[in-house]
Amino acid sequence: MSDILVLHGPNMNLLGLREPHIYGKTTLAEVNARLQALAAQHGATLRIIQSNHEGVLVDAIQDAAGWAQGILINPAGLTYSGYSIRDAIAGVAIPAVEVHISNIFAREAFRALSVIAPVCKGQICGFGVQSYLLGLLALLDSWRESS
Amino acid sequence: MSDILVLHGPNMNLLGLREPHIYGKTTLAEVNARLQALAAQHGATLRIIQSNHEGVLVDAIQDAAGWAQGILINPAGLTYSGYSIRDAIAGVAIPAVEVHISNIFAREAFRALSVIAPVCKGQICGFGVQSYLLGLLALLDSWRESS
Amino acid sequence: MSDILVLHGPNMNLLGLREPHIYGKTTLAEVNARLQALAAQHGATLRIIQSNHEGVLVDAIQDAAGWAQGILINPAGLTYSGYSIRDAIAGVAIPAVEVHISNIFAREAFRALSVIAPVCKGQICGFGVQSYLLGLLALLDSWRESS
Amino acid sequence: MSDILVLHGPNMNLLGLREPHIYGKTTLAEVNARLQALAAQHGATLRIIQSNHEGVLVDAIQDAAGWAQGILINPAGLTYSGYSIRDAIAGVAIPAVEVHISNIFAREAFRALSVIAPVCKGQICGFGVQSYLLGLLALLDSWRESS
Amino acid sequence: MSDILVLHGPNMNLLGLREPHIYGKTTLAEVNARLQALAAQHGATLRIIQSNHEGVLVDAIQDAAGWAQGILINPAGLTYSGYSIRDAIAGVAIPAVEVHISNIFAREAFRALSVIAPVCKGQICGFGVQSYLLGLLALLDSWRESS
Amino acid sequence: MSDILVLHGPNMNLLGLREPHIYGKTTLAEVNARLQALAAQHGATLRIIQSNHEGVLVDAIQDAAGWAQGILINPAGLTYSGYSIRDAIAGVAIPAVEVHISNIFAREAFRALSVIAPVCKGQICGFGVQSYLLGLLALLDSWRESS
Amino acid sequence: MSDILVLHGPNMNLLGLREPHIYGKTTLAEVNARLQALAAQHGATLRIIQSNHEGVLVDAIQDAAGWAQGILINPAGLTYSGYSIRDAIAGVAIPAVEVHISNIFAREAFRALSVIAPVCKGQICGFGVQSYLLGLLALLDSWRESS
Amino acid sequence: MSDILVLHGPNMNLLGLREPHIYGKTTLAEVNARLQALAAQHGATLRIIQSNHEGVLVDAIQDAAGWAQGILINPAGLTYSGYSIRDAIAGVAIPAVEVHISNIFAREAFRALSVIAPVCKGQICGFGVQSYLLGLLALLDSWRESS
Amino acid sequence: MSDILVLHGPNMNLLGLREPHIYGKTTLAEVNARLQALAAQHGATLRIIQSNHEGVLVDAIQDAAGWAQGILINPAGLTYSGYSIRDAIAGVAIPAVEVHISNIFAREAFRALSVIAPVCKGQICGFGVQSYLLGLLALLDSWRESS
Amino acid sequence: MSDILVLHGPNMNLLGLREPHIYGKTTLAEVNARLQALAAQHGATLRIIQSNHEGVLVDAIQDAAGWAQGILINPAGLTYSGYSIRDAIAGVAIPAVEVHISNIFAREAFRALSVIAPVCKGQICGFGVQSYLLGLLALLDSWRESS
Amino acid sequence: MSDILVLHGPNMNLLGLREPHIYGKTTLAEVNARLQALAAQHGATLRIIQSNHEGVLVDAIQDAAGWAQGILINPAGLTYSGYSIRDAIAGVAIPAVEVHISNIFAREAFRALSVIAPVCKGQICGFGVQSYLLGLLALLDSWRESS
Amino acid sequence: MSDILVLHGPNMNLLGLREPHIYGKTTLAEVNARLQALAAQHGATLRIIQSNHEGVLVDAIQDAAGWAQGILINPAGLTYSGYSIRDAIAGVAIPAVEVHISNIFAREAFRALSVIAPVCKGQICGFGVQSYLLGLLALLDSWRESS
Repeated sequence: MSDILVLHGPNMNLLGLREPHIYGKTTLAEVNARLQALAAQHGATLRIIQSNHEGVLVDAIQDAAGWAQGILINPAGLTYSGYSIRDAIAGVAIPAVEVHISNIFAREAFRALSVIAPVCKGQICGFGVQSYLLGLLALLDSWRESS
Repeated sequence: MSDILVLHGPNMNLLGLREPHIYGKTTLAEVNARLQALAAQHGATLRIIQSNHEGVLVDAIQDAAGWAQGILINPAGLTYSGYSIRDAIAGVAIPAVEVHISNIFAREAFRALSVIAPVCKGQICGFGVQSYLLGLLALLDSWRESS
Repeated sequence: MSDILVLHGPNMNLLGLREPHIYGKTTLAEVNARLQALAAQHGATLRIIQSNHEGVLVDAIQDAAGWAQGILINPAGLTYSGYSIRDAIAGVAIPAVEVHISNIFAREAFRALSVIAPVCKGQICGFGVQSYLLGLLALLDSWRESS
Repeated sequence: MSDILVLHGPNMNLLGLREPHIYGKTTLAEVNARLQALAAQHGATLRIIQSNHEGVLVDAIQDAAGWAQGILINPAGLTYSGYSIRDAIAGVAIPAVEVHISNIFAREAFRALSVIAPVCKGQICGFGVQSYLLGLLALLDSWRESS
Repeated sequence: MSDILVLHGPNMNLLGLREPHIYGKTTLAEVNARLQALAAQHGATLRIIQSNHEGVLVDAIQDAAGWAQGILINPAGLTYSGYSIRDAIAGVAIPAVEVHISNIFAREAFRALSVIAPVCKGQICGFGVQSYLLGLLALLDSWRESS
Repeated sequence: MSDILVLHGPNMNLLGLREPHIYGKTTLAEVNARLQALAAQHGATLRIIQSNHEGVLVDAIQDAAGWAQGILINPAGLTYSGYSIRDAIAGVAIPAVEVHISNIFAREAFRALSVIAPVCKGQICGFGVQSYLLGLLALLDSWRESS
Repeated sequence: MSDILVLHGPNMNLLGLREPHIYGKTTLAEVNARLQALAAQHGATLRIIQSNHEGVLVDAIQDAAGWAQGILINPAGLTYSGYSIRDAIAGVAIPAVEVHISNIFAREAFRALSVIAPVCKGQICGFGVQSYLLGLLALLDSWRESS
Repeated sequence: MSDILVLHGPNMNLLGLREPHIYGKTTLAEVNARLQALAAQHGATLRIIQSNHEGVLVDAIQDAAGWAQGILINPAGLTYSGYSIRDAIAGVAIPAVEVHISNIFAREAFRALSVIAPVCKGQICGFGVQSYLLGLLALLDSWRESS
Repeated sequence: MSDILVLHGPNMNLLGLREPHIYGKTTLAEVNARLQALAAQHGATLRIIQSNHEGVLVDAIQDAAGWAQGILINPAGLTYSGYSIRDAIAGVAIPAVEVHISNIFAREAFRALSVIAPVCKGQICGFGVQSYLLGLLALLDSWRESS
Repeated sequence: MSDILVLHGPNMNLLGLREPHIYGKTTLAEVNARLQALAAQHGATLRIIQSNHEGVLVDAIQDAAGWAQGILINPAGLTYSGYSIRDAIAGVAIPAVEVHISNIFAREAFRALSVIAPVCKGQICGFGVQSYLLGLLALLDSWRESS
Repeated sequence: MSDILVLHGPNMNLLGLREPHIYGKTTLAEVNARLQALAAQHGATLRIIQSNHEGVLVDAIQDAAGWAQGILINPAGLTYSGYSIRDAIAGVAIPAVEVHISNIFAREAFRALSVIAPVCKGQICGFGVQSYLLGLLALLDSWRESS
Repeated sequence: MSDILVLHGPNMNLLGLREPHIYGKTTLAEVNARLQALAAQHGATLRIIQSNHEGVLVDAIQDAAGWAQGILINPAGLTYSGYSIRDAIAGVAIPAVEVHISNIFAREAFRALSVIAPVCKGQICGFGVQSYLLGLLALLDSWRESS
């Protein structure tokens, strides 16, 4: 798995700039840099998209059918109503991993009810920025083989 | 009713290309061709839009107020959270028909709870591509008069 | 599909005679005549039964196993508690289409919860008498092939 | 209101013979006699039907459209699933009164949820056999005028 | 049963003056006059209290333990939260009848959930002012014996 | 206990003929033969009725009050809405055993909610045709004494 | 609209004296003074009542039918069970505005479920003492005309 | 803690006189005497109020802010809808203890859902009259120090 | 607070043109003009955006972090599923006020469940176009100080 | 099937000694003796374990994978929370039969919701000690063949 | 009542060592010492068991049938799923008192739903370590007689 | 973080031996070996415990307070009722990570409702055996620093 689509949902561009008591101080650019570095270590290539528009994310998932072997997604605010993202992931049949920075089980009750997770391979939440890195590892062939 | 807006919701552009065991093998282009042919038989004209963006669909419904006498819509993944589409249909007061390719009563429980259907004239589901054709017939004056 | 069983549930014999503001003015006899005419156009034969007794409808479905290729049913008041009809349709394994004259999504909340639809091929509702005609088309081979 | 249909639902023929600690010792024949006597006092005529078959009750309600000015009904076990009776009463648009011998609010929780009461004029429960008599009074013109 | 307490809950003093499309045009004074007349026919005496204060109603129920053989109550807006009235009725152990002018099953869903009815002898609703008269009859010995 | 009523609910006459992957290949006639044989071994007599009509089953239960010491019933599709059957069993006060061929806990959620079981002596489900035989044993005196 | 009834529900007399972290430091007297000043600016007159007794509030609403053109109410703890206040407002048919000092959507879940708001003209919450002032503006004719 | 307010909710004045199978035979006067005796042993003073009016109880709680160090309350029928009492206790910020004579977990389901307990220090139920005595001990400083 | 972002959600561009029985006859342009006039009176500046696209609204909220001191938002159809808007408002930590033209408590039940209100300062609904004006006042410093 | 594991859950060692009005007077030793006798008649061997520890029961089920062809289990108090037992039975894939002495449908509502039954072959309840014997028969090959 | 079993559920051995902001600083040893001292004052004897194993607690309750007149139990984490403890207490029929250190009504919603309390004599919660002492008093004969 | 407790809940000892279509073919020994290898790479030490007894797991968590800096736990069947494990983790305040081999969002609905996750740092599910390895990484300091 050498080509991976990374999707950041709505408001993730604010990461590190807003509400650091919940989401930490690392910016999205830093997250992306760390993801790129980890990917490079494993010979993988990332395309990274952040959007506040559900339609853009759906478009990206559909487009991934032509080139990606994996999807790493933090649906953010669309986690609870993003049925179109759900259907897109199910439609392209590319292994997807859902990640969340905070522990969705320890916040408002509605946040634990992801409508997207059921069509993903798995979910990782609660580890701050490392949720992304762990999620990427979960997709990488080289790590899966060596681990 | 000679001018009809046909709306395909998110991921419907994948029709026939993905998950054929659920949605069949007919592509969206073929669906559109069959819809156009049926419309032509009845002297009706169709404008067809597919979008993965809820806003685009809302824009189209609003725009239809100027020219269309009917709306045929498969809201797809927006069926369960598309309150803006619901409000748009109610707002323009053009008769709308909701269609689904699969039987929404025979899948996951959440799929039976359309938030859009209550403001439509009716709903048709479960007949594959023919759900669209039947939905178009339901809107066509010539058929309604002759049938 | 040339032999089709048409079932009208409880109170459908009042059609056109009572509550025309909800159900319209067409009588059941007229509905049947229009269904017969449409069937004739497609070379199909209909047997039509109306009953206020769930058992009679179950008997008819069972009996259809010997001769019918399709079932068109408006379960009416039994839509919400007719588990025996559900089991009968599932048992005989003949394609069935559920129809409703009114839009079940736009009335009392309990009316949207059909217990029969999950074992049908599909459902059509909201188009008045034309729900029946559209439902019949959905079953007819000749139309399915030509459409 | 001089012609009234009285309907006793399933198992009411056992009245007075079974479970007297719940339903009392008066038999259905005695109930009917008291109803007839009260009706006679007010110059009204009753037709009384008891059936364990929901369809028979629906038929009777439909038939009443031709001659009755009121319906007095104890749906018994059909109170909680008798949607067809509900639709029949709504369909014929004859004033109906639902009665119960026991207090449906003081028994199992499901017994308080009548699906028929919403389309009746009113409901009376808890007064034993006198629930019937009070229900009849509620329908009688002469009493309504004098009371 | 010759001494009966009649209780009218909050806002019943507006009867006939407000919302006549729901509650009719008869005033509370007229209701009380009709109740008094009916009681007089049967040799019974009524004490009638209307209050917008739950505590006043509870006090009255407790006081009734010293003189009344029956309670006729329309709890009105306290029907859904009047647990203290419920406990008072259960405490004094005087037969009580709950009445409502409108059909509580045919209005907002919360109106069907009386917390008081389970400790009453029975409930009567939907017959307008006559709900009161029927409720009084249900308490009167002379009527019970003769009916 | 030598006289037992055996009741088969709606669609049980299709047993062995339809959906054998769920219900097996044994026909109802064969079930009845095996029940008769087992009864004969224990000196018991069976009367067996199958009906798709709830009213017929209620009639049969009431009639059993005159001659039967036990009831063996598979309510089938009426399990979830057969309140009249429930009331009939409670009314005649004959020990009843509810049986199901399939494991009602392992199918759709609604199938586990029997409204009849609470008034039965017990319930047996999941053992195919042997659910009937085990249910019959549970009613037979000779077996109860020797086991 | 020149005569307005202002109602403060239970415990509002503690305003500014207790729990200032939730309700602020302004006392009820100060609130009333500010309301009076604003009313005077618009040529309106206020009658202000605070009570811990639901019945007193209901009495006041009924009395308002004779003189008031608007009601401004903070039902406080009665927001969730004050059905009698609800019925009183509906009964007198005077435009009412419900206000809350705190944001009822951001506290315990039960606080968002007002039983009174459905019969009010509108609701304002979350602006501290200014919720009252905004609510008064919403009722004042002069402001409505000029704004 | 030497000054304590004791509040008895609606119908508690009937204690010992009504429903002794649930609440025992001790009268409220006897309860109060035993409370006074226990308080005297610990050098504490009690003010005791019983009321059937929620407003009176709220007034008393507010008044307690000037003199009491603890509140002992049996809200009785107001336990389930007494949001104003809840807010009053939270407002005065005096430690309160809720007591119930019967075990609220072992009666009707609604009785376990106290809306007042969340703002109390604790709750004691099920010990008959001794629930009061235990509740008083829980408030008394001298006992808390010695125990 | 002199710079305020005003956001109109999906379909608000139809205001005054469609469904005037619900939303009135004032157009969005007129609403904006009145808002601008009121802002000018208080020395405030408004930037006004209407969009049918949730992403556009999220973008605007994020952008406001650089210049606005307040947000006035009518989320319209996104009120019930706009978690991304919710997160954006929480993220930028600018005081926001949610407004609705109609009384959301008096329409379909789902409309009362705003997912955005919990992160707003407050909510105003039911006053037609004046809901906007009141909401603007709630944000304006000069008014807050003078009122 | 000649080797069967019999498991008695928590408190079953009290059988016959406690609460005989619910569970009867037969002791667990007597139950075991009767089970052994019945097994012996059919040439089967039983290993019987009673434990109040869920872990012990899970261990026993796992161990059974090496020698047993069937499991007869009364999970008792673990019926409603014993997910580990459920997983163990599903894991070893040995046919299991769940039995209960009392009719779980006729007691507290929570008792009807077995979390273990869905992975069992079937369930038998309500027949006292004979529930065990019937459950054993359901597992025995010799009986299945002859019956 | 001179012999009492005291049971501490899972994690109570951490009392005073962990989470003192919730549970205080008193250790379990100190609690036990205080309980022993109080018991000694009243001439009672305690046997005290703490276990993290539900089975051990069930064993202890069963064993208590031979010697104890009362049970004092803090089920801790088993409060919400300890059906086996519930059945054990019901089985031995020894008066039991459930205690909790914290106020279970003021924490997570699930903590208020004890499955054990319904079979206990009563429950005490919220008084820290004194919940135990009050619970012991509730069981002691000498105190009950003198109080 | 160099000392980590690894806990495997009930039935995990069957891993790789049972239901490989759900859980894969890797045995628990192999999982442990891979965990040990990964830990060794990072200079960490593991103590690994598998138990079918909740009490044993609670004991282990408590014991970890003396030596461990992290807990890696797959609660398995105790995920849904293991409140004692939850309280133990909260009590010892050691960072814990919950892992599941399968995607708990894509199986039976009850499996998504972990009662333990809210007190953990985070959760990882769906990646087969690699869920464990990813969970271990999430706890390891050296990886967190380098990643």
